[in-house]
Amino acid sequence: MSLVEPITIRFGIVGCAEIARKVSRAINLAPNAQIAAVASRSPEKAGAFAKANNVPAEAKIYGSYEPLLDDPDIDVVYLPLPTSLHLKWATLAAQKKKHVLLEKPVAVTVAELDQILAACEANGVQFMDGTMWVHHPRTAKMREFLDDKRRFGELRTIQSCFTFAAPESFLKDDIRVKPDLDSLGALGDAGWYGVRAILWAADYHLPKTVVATPGSVTSDRGVILACGASLHWEDGKSATFHCSFLTHLTMFLTAIGTQGTLQLNDFIIPFQEHEASFSTSSRAGFDDQVTRWEPGPRQEVAGIDGVPQEVRLIEEMARLVGEIKVGGAGKVDREWGARSRKTQQVLNAVKESIEKGFVPVEIA
Amino acid sequence: MSLVEPITIRFGIVGCAEIARKVSRAINLAPNAQIAAVASRSPEKAGAFAKANNVPAEAKIYGSYEPLLDDPDIDVVYLPLPTSLHLKWATLAAQKKKHVLLEKPVAVTVAELDQILAACEANGVQFMDGTMWVHHPRTAKMREFLDDKRRFGELRTIQSCFTFAAPESFLKDDIRVKPDLDSLGALGDAGWYGVRAILWAADYHLPKTVVATPGSVTSDRGVILACGASLHWEDGKSATFHCSFLTHLTMFLTAIGTQGTLQLNDFIIPFQEHEASFSTSSRAGFDDQVTRWEPGPRQEVAGIDGVPQEVRLIEEMARLVGEIKVGGAGKVDREWGARSRKTQQVLNAVKESIEKGFVPVEIA
Repeated sequence: MSLVEPITIRFGIVGCAEIARKVSRAINLAPNAQIAAVASRSPEKAGAFAKANNVPAEAKIYGSYEPLLDDPDIDVVYLPLPTSLHLKWATLAAQKKKHVLLEKPVAVTVAELDQILAACEANGVQFMDGTMWVHHPRTAKMREFLDDKRRFGELRTIQSCFTFAAPESFLKDDIRVKPDLDSLGALGDAGWYGVRAILWAADYHLPKTVVATPGSVTSDRGVILACGASLHWEDGKSATFHCSFLTHLTMFLTAIGTQGTLQLNDFIIPFQEHEASFSTSSRAGFDDQVTRWEPGPRQEVAGIDGVPQEVRLIEEMARLVGEIKVGGAGKVDREWGARSRKTQQVLNAVKESIEKGFVPVEIA
Repeated sequence: MSLVEPITIRFGIVGCAEIARKVSRAINLAPNAQIAAVASRSPEKAGAFAKANNVPAEAKIYGSYEPLLDDPDIDVVYLPLPTSLHLKWATLAAQKKKHVLLEKPVAVTVAELDQILAACEANGVQFMDGTMWVHHPRTAKMREFLDDKRRFGELRTIQSCFTFAAPESFLKDDIRVKPDLDSLGALGDAGWYGVRAILWAADYHLPKTVVATPGSVTSDRGVILACGASLHWEDGKSATFHCSFLTHLTMFLTAIGTQGTLQLNDFIIPFQEHEASFSTSSRAGFDDQVTRWEPGPRQEVAGIDGVPQEVRLIEEMARLVGEIKVGGAGKVDREWGARSRKTQQVLNAVKESIEKGFVPVEIA
């Protein structure tokens, strides 16, 4: 029996986007979290969402966003709104002393994100973005490999990719292709993951320069549908990523060091839910006749102990909020906001590079 | 019993480079080929090579290259010489009516290669470069997947990578880092494979434009040690590759279509000799809650039936030469030269792009 009563953190869902289904399931599964309210632009929509997603019967249903933000029984608001609405609602949530779990891309610009982060800072609330894969136990295991100087050496190069073939209807009507709702398009949606993976591998050290790769695809409405870029660090490290709404579902992340290599093809959503794997290779070469690898790569497996990555994200957010509820604003973990900001900085630099004709853009 | 006596094609090895060991083994293993002579710059070196590599006792040993080219008992010369010597010796071999198996990179410039190919053409001899992986049965199986409109759709993007961490001694003394011997450095050596894989995936359609990625590394002596580029086709297809002598042994090839994806991490030298695999994914998506892939990728395996890829290269070269010996110069297969030339065109465009400051370079 624990001496301290575990605190259950109460989440309010603001907006019933597709991704909110998965996050609702995660909140329901997380032992230290519960859905305490759902808000949509109409009570019917919020009610239907609650019913379809096993939201507890005692949860409140709101037909607009602001009353949920005013609800004293809510600790955290989860915001899966279109990106262009993040500034308004995330800032307002923070001002109303709600902790903020914000879907990615977190903002349209770094300036917008800075306003959101400043509001969180001023109001002593926790900020976290909705990137799930960083919470998977596999990610911690991969980190150990990258940190192992003997097995991996020094990181030199990272390559990542995330593409999926969006259906016709998506390319016409989805939020992510509408310039007024999500002007970053594929860069903000799919590219977010590739850039985040690169920064994660680079221990969140920012590159000095970013250059978009020629040949990016922009829709008639000016939204990016496919693009890529190379990132360059002062110490000579480099990385590339590619993202697209126009080609078959593909993921990869390759991190190459001086002594080892990490490779996986499902870094965002694992092929299977119950366990995930990655390939490591260390001090590899070939046999004497150069006909095979010696040693070959190793497949390393990470189980999830029944707790999927999105549940771990919720657990972590709830744990942080619990600590703040007990220990005060001094307990706020600013690292999560800093990681989101670095990701956003790179995304915006890529966009700027595209707009200026694929020229190098310095990261401030 | 076959009605036609199989012709054994007689190979002469000109130069005893490291790679010649592997090719000698392959000639020894190929049923339609034999090593009939070895030439080096001294008879001692040629003799020692012959002894160390199971060269048949009846093979002739030459202390210089030209006598081997004059030997009427040689059908094919295999030239593993430093790249800057290819023009002289491959051209001379062709003029002396020897078929030419030339190590990669085939030349320093396209202009040089054109002289070599013109000499082969004028003298009715077969040309082939030493790229082994294209002869692996896995490659044919991968081709089937890429050609399958239902499973793969239309090719849109290709990404490839080949790097290895060359030891100090290599970076100081290897032929591949000496500007007078192999000025293309890592681009000609490791980059050759990445570019070739991209062209292979693109059915040998040339890109329109090539742009080197900033951040390439050049040695004090002006030799490329690491670089990359993006390739752009008129139909919107694009590709990227990265190559390096400075980071851990890593390979990957990813070809993304509208309906499917091909991925493998050992395309040049398979992890194991007896069989090789690759991953295919078709019309993949996620489950309803976006927590796993549905369907997941398939691992496809290709056995080699006891015949490694380099032996298949020799068999194919010997088969072509056998046909020419029977049917005349009309039987020369010009596709192999055309593939080498396209690879060389892209390499040279990448080098030009690097030299001009990472600007787009049109492929003529």
